[in-house]
Amino acid sequence: MKLATLRLDGRTVAVRVDDLAAVEIEGVSDVGALLQDANWKRTAEAAAGASHVLADIAPTQWAPVVPDPRKIVCVGLNYRNHIKEMGRELPEFPTLFAKYPDALIGPFDPIVLPAHAGDHVDWEGELAVIIGKRASHVKEADATAYIAGYSVMNDVTMRDYQYRTPEWFQGKTFEATAPFGPYLITEGSFEFGGKLTTSVDGNVMQSTLTNDLVFSPEALIEYISAIFPLAPGDVIVTGTPGGVGHARKPEVYLTPGQVLTTAIEGIGVIESPVVAAGK
Amino acid sequence: MKLATLRLDGRTVAVRVDDLAAVEIEGVSDVGALLQDANWKRTAEAAAGASHVLADIAPTQWAPVVPDPRKIVCVGLNYRNHIKEMGRELPEFPTLFAKYPDALIGPFDPIVLPAHAGDHVDWEGELAVIIGKRASHVKEADATAYIAGYSVMNDVTMRDYQYRTPEWFQGKTFEATAPFGPYLITEGSFEFGGKLTTSVDGNVMQSTLTNDLVFSPEALIEYISAIFPLAPGDVIVTGTPGGVGHARKPEVYLTPGQVLTTAIEGIGVIESPVVAAGK
Repeated sequence: MKLATLRLDGRTVAVRVDDLAAVEIEGVSDVGALLQDANWKRTAEAAAGASHVLADIAPTQWAPVVPDPRKIVCVGLNYRNHIKEMGRELPEFPTLFAKYPDALIGPFDPIVLPAHAGDHVDWEGELAVIIGKRASHVKEADATAYIAGYSVMNDVTMRDYQYRTPEWFQGKTFEATAPFGPYLITEGSFEFGGKLTTSVDGNVMQSTLTNDLVFSPEALIEYISAIFPLAPGDVIVTGTPGGVGHARKPEVYLTPGQVLTTAIEGIGVIESPVVAAGK
Repeated sequence: MKLATLRLDGRTVAVRVDDLAAVEIEGVSDVGALLQDANWKRTAEAAAGASHVLADIAPTQWAPVVPDPRKIVCVGLNYRNHIKEMGRELPEFPTLFAKYPDALIGPFDPIVLPAHAGDHVDWEGELAVIIGKRASHVKEADATAYIAGYSVMNDVTMRDYQYRTPEWFQGKTFEATAPFGPYLITEGSFEFGGKLTTSVDGNVMQSTLTNDLVFSPEALIEYISAIFPLAPGDVIVTGTPGGVGHARKPEVYLTPGQVLTTAIEGIGVIESPVVAAGK
């Protein structure tokens, strides 16, 4: 099953996305709100609200799939192939940092390069894991049951801010910079491990299989939930593979007029026009 | 004016703390909820709800002053005297990282050393700044008007987790480890700059004047609000001075049975018994 959040006439609504139409889950404002319901899966399956033909939904109508998670936990370097190509040891522990929900934008919304921080803006295509029930001290073997599903996020990063102090956080959480969506694909309803691809104007910059993660979604839930609880709608963004602009020689950053595409096979595609501030 | 959040019979309530009694601000569940009201100051001044004699309030009744802020933004090394004593240059930019609200505990609640992360638990006494109205792209010169008031937090840190990866975050946000309160002292109602003192069993470990900050509360609001908006109830924790246990030779960490005291002159005193997990 595919779920999404649509913007309709000044409100948002959670929808089940069928082959040809998005069906409103009546009375539920977004996928984050839906996941607060312990029976969210049955509620979504049974939904029979107003129907919107997919071809008629404008790109601007797709909201971040979970618009306002309480927690977005990001994971640092987590792709085996990239770590090996860099000649590094596989890490013993996942590197974690936070992103605030104000950073999120819809999957087809523009990425606006901030006037004061727009010169070193880089892509990081990532698999996002969305939590379906409260997880505290959960073991890896039991963790699948805590996953509502998967989505796509681009952890767009201001490299200048990321590296101007010892902590990356300030370069990772600029307001309205991280596209998220378009769908939540429910756990178990597709084959996990499809290819993640990030492209700029159609040129592939990052490409990896998502089952090459050092720390799997389940291993991350065990590690993180031993530090703090995860709640329905919380998001773990599982890390990016090689191919970011900052690591290229010469370095490459996003510029106005480009289109950033982030895709995971079996999950979905994000397309983000890049625009200058004030445009 | 002093504000606090009290636990009463399974609920919490915001109170105005007068000389002898805490007066309930009726219908307001905590100081964070109070600050959502644009007229919060007048509402608190006019409050005339049930009155609780201070001497009769049990330590366990004091909740974190803002129990559930959306954002807790922590600042790295920010005390001039400590940076100079370390022979370092003053930083050009503040170092920022996040703490999740699940980390908060009341100002007299025990700090429970986690079974799996209890051997390298350290203190970081800090001045907390609580935001009173939405701040986005605010200039330093205007920033005082966005401060609701000040409080005390101990940014208790698991040093092993802090340093096992490049990012400090995971050592900074363990569930139920950071005492916060007991009061919010409203901006303008006391002389800013009093001494911050952290003690273990009465032995002073950290001592500094809070006006020795490299980045003042107002400078931090300018810097942070250019990255993401701050909302009423959000907290900026402004950094810790020298004297942490990890920097001592030999290193010193908290052990069960100790009492950690964190005090700022003119604001308040936190007293945290340290206990082992399962005790």
